[in-house]
Amino acid sequence: MALEVFHKDETLQMRRKLIGQSCRLFFSRDPVKIVRARGQYLYDENGMQYLDCISNVQHVGHCHPSLTQAAAAQMDLLNSNTRFLHDNIVLYADRLAATLPKKLCVFYFVNSGSEANDLALRLARQYTRHQDVIVLDHAYHGHLTSLIDISPYKFRKLGGQKEWVHVAPLPDTYHGIYREDHPDPGQAYADTMKSLIDEAHKKGRKISSFFAESLPSVGGQIIFPTGYCKRVAEYVREAGGIYVADEIQTGFGRVGSHFWAFQLQGEDFCPDIVTMGKPIGNGHPIACVATTEEIATAFTANGVEYFNTFGGNPVSCAIGLAVLDVIEKEDLRGNAVRVGGHLKQLLLQLQTKHPLIGDVRGVGLFIGMELVKDRASRKPATEEAAHLVRRLKEERIVMSTDGPWDSVIKFKPPMCFSIEDAERVCTCIDQILREEFLPLLSTSPLHQNTLPPHSVHSPLQPHLSHTTLLALLHSPSSPTDQKENYIFKSIVCYFFC
Amino acid sequence: MALEVFHKDETLQMRRKLIGQSCRLFFSRDPVKIVRARGQYLYDENGMQYLDCISNVQHVGHCHPSLTQAAAAQMDLLNSNTRFLHDNIVLYADRLAATLPKKLCVFYFVNSGSEANDLALRLARQYTRHQDVIVLDHAYHGHLTSLIDISPYKFRKLGGQKEWVHVAPLPDTYHGIYREDHPDPGQAYADTMKSLIDEAHKKGRKISSFFAESLPSVGGQIIFPTGYCKRVAEYVREAGGIYVADEIQTGFGRVGSHFWAFQLQGEDFCPDIVTMGKPIGNGHPIACVATTEEIATAFTANGVEYFNTFGGNPVSCAIGLAVLDVIEKEDLRGNAVRVGGHLKQLLLQLQTKHPLIGDVRGVGLFIGMELVKDRASRKPATEEAAHLVRRLKEERIVMSTDGPWDSVIKFKPPMCFSIEDAERVCTCIDQILREEFLPLLSTSPLHQNTLPPHSVHSPLQPHLSHTTLLALLHSPSSPTDQKENYIFKSIVCYFFC
Repeated sequence: MALEVFHKDETLQMRRKLIGQSCRLFFSRDPVKIVRARGQYLYDENGMQYLDCISNVQHVGHCHPSLTQAAAAQMDLLNSNTRFLHDNIVLYADRLAATLPKKLCVFYFVNSGSEANDLALRLARQYTRHQDVIVLDHAYHGHLTSLIDISPYKFRKLGGQKEWVHVAPLPDTYHGIYREDHPDPGQAYADTMKSLIDEAHKKGRKISSFFAESLPSVGGQIIFPTGYCKRVAEYVREAGGIYVADEIQTGFGRVGSHFWAFQLQGEDFCPDIVTMGKPIGNGHPIACVATTEEIATAFTANGVEYFNTFGGNPVSCAIGLAVLDVIEKEDLRGNAVRVGGHLKQLLLQLQTKHPLIGDVRGVGLFIGMELVKDRASRKPATEEAAHLVRRLKEERIVMSTDGPWDSVIKFKPPMCFSIEDAERVCTCIDQILREEFLPLLSTSPLHQNTLPPHSVHSPLQPHLSHTTLLALLHSPSSPTDQKENYIFKSIVCYFFC
Repeated sequence: MALEVFHKDETLQMRRKLIGQSCRLFFSRDPVKIVRARGQYLYDENGMQYLDCISNVQHVGHCHPSLTQAAAAQMDLLNSNTRFLHDNIVLYADRLAATLPKKLCVFYFVNSGSEANDLALRLARQYTRHQDVIVLDHAYHGHLTSLIDISPYKFRKLGGQKEWVHVAPLPDTYHGIYREDHPDPGQAYADTMKSLIDEAHKKGRKISSFFAESLPSVGGQIIFPTGYCKRVAEYVREAGGIYVADEIQTGFGRVGSHFWAFQLQGEDFCPDIVTMGKPIGNGHPIACVATTEEIATAFTANGVEYFNTFGGNPVSCAIGLAVLDVIEKEDLRGNAVRVGGHLKQLLLQLQTKHPLIGDVRGVGLFIGMELVKDRASRKPATEEAAHLVRRLKEERIVMSTDGPWDSVIKFKPPMCFSIEDAERVCTCIDQILREEFLPLLSTSPLHQNTLPPHSVHSPLQPHLSHTTLLALLHSPSSPTDQKENYIFKSIVCYFFC
């Protein structure tokens, strides 16, 4: 199979013509064309290697041969639908059940995290006979009509908040109303939920469910304070609703210590529904809803068939099974603990050196590094984060931002990310921050840096941008105020990087 | 890879425990376990072959080796997302564009027909700034919350009709308000749409779109009367709405003469959006929305990214491309014309012999044979259709029903269905109808029939059911009234077949 059919310019031109422009590209001014990948490494059309810090979907690593084999073997045998009996779906459900608390024992297979959350919404409403949904501020639960309605991240830009949606404060102890110095932020944030429910009841509304990512991702790589979920679940259940844990980004061992991120909240907390997606098939379109017998029974009682054409087909389940096997065989949860722990330590060390790094948080290989204008105000350093991402791209490291202000550098790499990868990316970040964001130290030109051997520049990307940038940055007319300097550098980089 | 891990009983037991019971099985009293398939043939755990007349998803045939190769090759190279540039997505969009009228030139890739219809709804509303949707009676457009709302087939059983949904009469010239003797049923049915729009306008409602399958499937394998779509599109556009052609069941050459079923309505008709699904990836979860530049531009103008995690990934597109190649190389459209034409002729011949067959309709390999209690009243023969399907299963032919009363035997086989397959299924239908539904002719015992060699009974299914059935059917106490006889036989078969 040819790695490339069209020259990159032609691909880009065709893409602009043929694909809806709402589908955006990373680094839109100079997008990356990736033609090959393996493990945690991406390769562009010139064979240039990029370290991938963000492809959480390619959970066990890009193009794992076990998955290709499992898919091809099953594709050669049978791909039908769930109206025929087949072993793969029950084998797979059984394996997933073993990772979950006993009460989550009934499964529905679908094709995407969005389909899973939509089905969770249907299950919640059918079971509770209530309509309303509580979500966390800045949450994103999917691209479907029903999910935009429960995603503040989207509905604030698209048509506004429906009367049946209630937005609870994000329990963010760095930016939120209760911070790290609060004696019990878990209880305090749970109490905001209680107030919200009381308010909704006063308006005659009835709560069907609380939807939350077990670690809010788009919300900024947030770690819930201790006790939060258990207390919230109590309040929601008292109101006749259920707790839906969206594990689409966080499941399948990403947090290392546990298979599911909700398990970080302790053994005495169990959601009523868990939705799974992204990493579940390592990129193959599969997703799942796990729930209780009671909720499943109520859904069946409506007498209407639920048929999902592709959901739970033998090929998707074979791939899902193979992913579980690789997670176990390669001890990827152990790797997430070791490498994630080391990465977090390195980032915390960087924080001691760079005032720009306001916060480092995370578990396993789900880590956020938040950039701030200054630590006192915690004002998000949005442009600086964007600049850092662009600079890392030049160093052949693919990174991205998240959070309400896109000020959080997010690490969600394939789970085979190594200690060396973690060290490489931290060395790069250190160097970029030192040279470009600590003006007193920024005297050594960028092209003389001592970056690791992987970060050789592509022949397609001459040093013009750096040279031009440096000329501008070191010219006598450059602004000297640190804040203005950041903005100025960002603007320069926006046009040249 | 083992064909079977569990004994069938155990699989069934695990399935009942682990998988939501809303996910139903074919032949629920004695479901079929299929472990292997090739072309148009399914094989159960005992190696017994079934002829597959309904798997429209496995469009180019089950387990086509070209698709397995294409999937494995791309899985080995790269599976990423659309935020990176890649050739497959633009190659694929370009190939699809070549099958469509020029104005449908912008593509969005998603994971299922349901996701495609949900996106079409979003596009329509964003472009028209209107909210309301017109759909045809009995329509089904998907399992998502938003699509149940626009599917009378579902919402009548689940919560009812929303104020923004308007249901137009199904232009069914066999059962509908205008029939085959009407001089211009296309215009007459289109006029019902005009009245519906006028009524909606009187209530202050604003039409965003008309959604219709290009050949209503769940509605009963309906062929639109000539001129219907063009006229309807005019009325809908006059109201500021757009025409969404749901080609999820009917696209990719199933009708033989054309690549898309909407093209049967003439070159002067073009929808504003076409949604694709089921056969597009031969079972791999992929789907697509094609639309105009104007609609895509309006969607982009809202400034919000549309990101679909798996949609349009290099593996899905490689499989989609391989499906298009096979359709062309194996002349599957030509096959649909030849085999579909022959099958329809054979069914029309059966109609002349069997009063139970009220109507035979269809194009290419999309054919419906409607059973009726009597031809004058056209009363649907629901139980008889269910019985025929169960009897065909005994003859190792997998068939199903559709339509508002489940009285339509639907043929939507893999496109490699052969002349011999068509003859075999018609011989079987003839024999079953002759022996079980024409009491005057039903003297020859079933076990002496002359069915083709494929229909040998499985060792797991002894002739007990037939013997018992026949003993009962021929006992002196059997009811003699033909109608009662049908019901009696259906009940007997329900318990024994």
